Amino acid sequence: MLKNDIFLRALLKQPVEYTPVWIMRQAGRYLPEYRAIRQKAGSFMSLCKNKTLACEVALQPLQRFNLDAAILFSDILTIPDAMGLGLHFETGEGPIFRYPVRDIKAVRSLEIPDSEDALSYVTDAVSLIKKTLNGSVPLIGFSGSPWTLATYMVEGKSTKEFKLIKGLMYNEPETVHLLLEKLAAAVTDYLNAQIRHGADVVQIFDTWGGILTPEAYREFSLQYMERIIKGLIRQREGREIPVILFTKNSGLWLEAIVKAGATTVGLDWTINMADARRRIGDKVSLQGNMDPCLLYASPTRIRQEVKKILHDFSDGGKIKTGHVFNLGHGVHPGVNPDNVCAMVDAVHEFSQ
Amino acid sequence: MLKNDIFLRALLKQPVEYTPVWIMRQAGRYLPEYRAIRQKAGSFMSLCKNKTLACEVALQPLQRFNLDAAILFSDILTIPDAMGLGLHFETGEGPIFRYPVRDIKAVRSLEIPDSEDALSYVTDAVSLIKKTLNGSVPLIGFSGSPWTLATYMVEGKSTKEFKLIKGLMYNEPETVHLLLEKLAAAVTDYLNAQIRHGADVVQIFDTWGGILTPEAYREFSLQYMERIIKGLIRQREGREIPVILFTKNSGLWLEAIVKAGATTVGLDWTINMADARRRIGDKVSLQGNMDPCLLYASPTRIRQEVKKILHDFSDGGKIKTGHVFNLGHGVHPGVNPDNVCAMVDAVHEFSQ
Repeated sequence: MLKNDIFLRALLKQPVEYTPVWIMRQAGRYLPEYRAIRQKAGSFMSLCKNKTLACEVALQPLQRFNLDAAILFSDILTIPDAMGLGLHFETGEGPIFRYPVRDIKAVRSLEIPDSEDALSYVTDAVSLIKKTLNGSVPLIGFSGSPWTLATYMVEGKSTKEFKLIKGLMYNEPETVHLLLEKLAAAVTDYLNAQIRHGADVVQIFDTWGGILTPEAYREFSLQYMERIIKGLIRQREGREIPVILFTKNSGLWLEAIVKAGATTVGLDWTINMADARRRIGDKVSLQGNMDPCLLYASPTRIRQEVKKILHDFSDGGKIKTGHVFNLGHGVHPGVNPDNVCAMVDAVHEFSQ
Repeated sequence: MLKNDIFLRALLKQPVEYTPVWIMRQAGRYLPEYRAIRQKAGSFMSLCKNKTLACEVALQPLQRFNLDAAILFSDILTIPDAMGLGLHFETGEGPIFRYPVRDIKAVRSLEIPDSEDALSYVTDAVSLIKKTLNGSVPLIGFSGSPWTLATYMVEGKSTKEFKLIKGLMYNEPETVHLLLEKLAAAVTDYLNAQIRHGADVVQIFDTWGGILTPEAYREFSLQYMERIIKGLIRQREGREIPVILFTKNSGLWLEAIVKAGATTVGLDWTINMADARRRIGDKVSLQGNMDPCLLYASPTRIRQEVKKILHDFSDGGKIKTGHVFNLGHGVHPGVNPDNVCAMVDAVHEFSQ
């Protein structure tokens, strides 16, 4: 049914002809054709909520680059928005919530949205992208992790310090746990809806788990991702649905992370791929992990780094399955698309 | 000569009666008495450059809390300022350089400042603080690491993405190496001047080493800190001058870091103290590592965390030398000083 299923096979550690590649935030501001649609749509959330435009931008990077997977175009903060927090974006400020959640009363009053209803603009986009892809490559669905959603819901906006969410976590852990329980239920429902509508793989983005102590990470982030993974649809039409878990800055905690039950663990660039494989690579497949800033370097330098990362994962130069090439975080808006092309082609060339 | 030298003894793994404690950024905005002097001084740099006021604020936290060390009051960016980059601070923006350094020509024209001359306001402050302390506790001198200084010098200001410095590093490594060589020479001279003027210990702050790949960290940050450590005065009046090396977000690389020759390695809160001690604690002493956001919690919760960290470092509850308690990064400006007091007292109480 899929013309190119090498991404799924690599995730599941089945034989592959080469190392597949996709890019976090591959549909985004670094592409001029994205910026054109973004302008047409008005606000960023209008773009997310218009399934035709969301489908169009999701497919743009596949027209330019030889990518092995597509990803739903959406935002990680759709669930809190559906809970009534009033998500909007201000230029240079990032996401803002009009109604942050900062005490037990506010947490108690939150209702878990029915994804098929309150988030139908997402499931509609999944259906349309899946249909338009026409089996060319697999489609990735995604969600923010409960902890990552909670940081934005409590802070109300991006932060460097995490004063409010951490203050609440240390002073009233039960309030944060209630919030995370609700979010875990909402994320499970949301990812299952995406799977039912056509997502072949799902990724949980835990952007902010890495700001925690090891103990708090397990208690406030990992525990809830594990709960979600247990509740996900893992088979559809006889095929396994892999789950990718990505916590930025979590290289120290890999041994704990593999126990959460994900098929694949995403890595940022602060860990060496050979070390990661030695530590956990027999238990899960790995995704990553080029420094996104390498895309500011020359194609020659990019090719050199791709070769190094592929070699680090390999058996002494012999490419093996279980590796999906990616950046260690989303592609930066200022990057030249030609450099992205150099990276994608180098992955295929050097892994054959 | 020193009335309280327990900090030095813990760094050197000599017997101690309890675990000593100081706090990164202990003289700072969270203290109302600091804010009063800061206002009087005008700009932040005027405060750094006025030895009387710099001495006054350096001593403020020692009047409030039972700290085991004082630290020079200064900024990490004094060296690039002395190189002529025009440092200034804008509210809410952090440090700005009027003349950033972005190509080989600019790097070549940089001159290494003579610390006793161009940075005499720092050595004067060291002398005055040392004299005013009158042997009560040891005095810590400090500098930013070459890599950390280079990030600000190239970017020209604070950044989340590090596009310019990393672009330069990946495209023209030789330009960045020349910059780092000059900075390593300047930092060595600067720290030696501080030692000659009375610093009993020096700390190298590598705030941004942790944004690198493991390979780039060794090549562009650690290598230069090792070079500095080799060039430092390590004995004065028959007493050893310990060196503390602190790279934020470096928990994955501890085995490499201990080889740089520092007496002590500073840890942030993303690593468990027992794990760190198991991995490297017999080779160096350790400093850290409470999450600074714990100071937003209640004194009861703070005491609980202090106890946990002390226990993690201990031999099954028996406190041992080689640990200096600190936060895992600087104290946040919004913290209540009473909570800092609760932390300091708890360290002494629980480690006796």
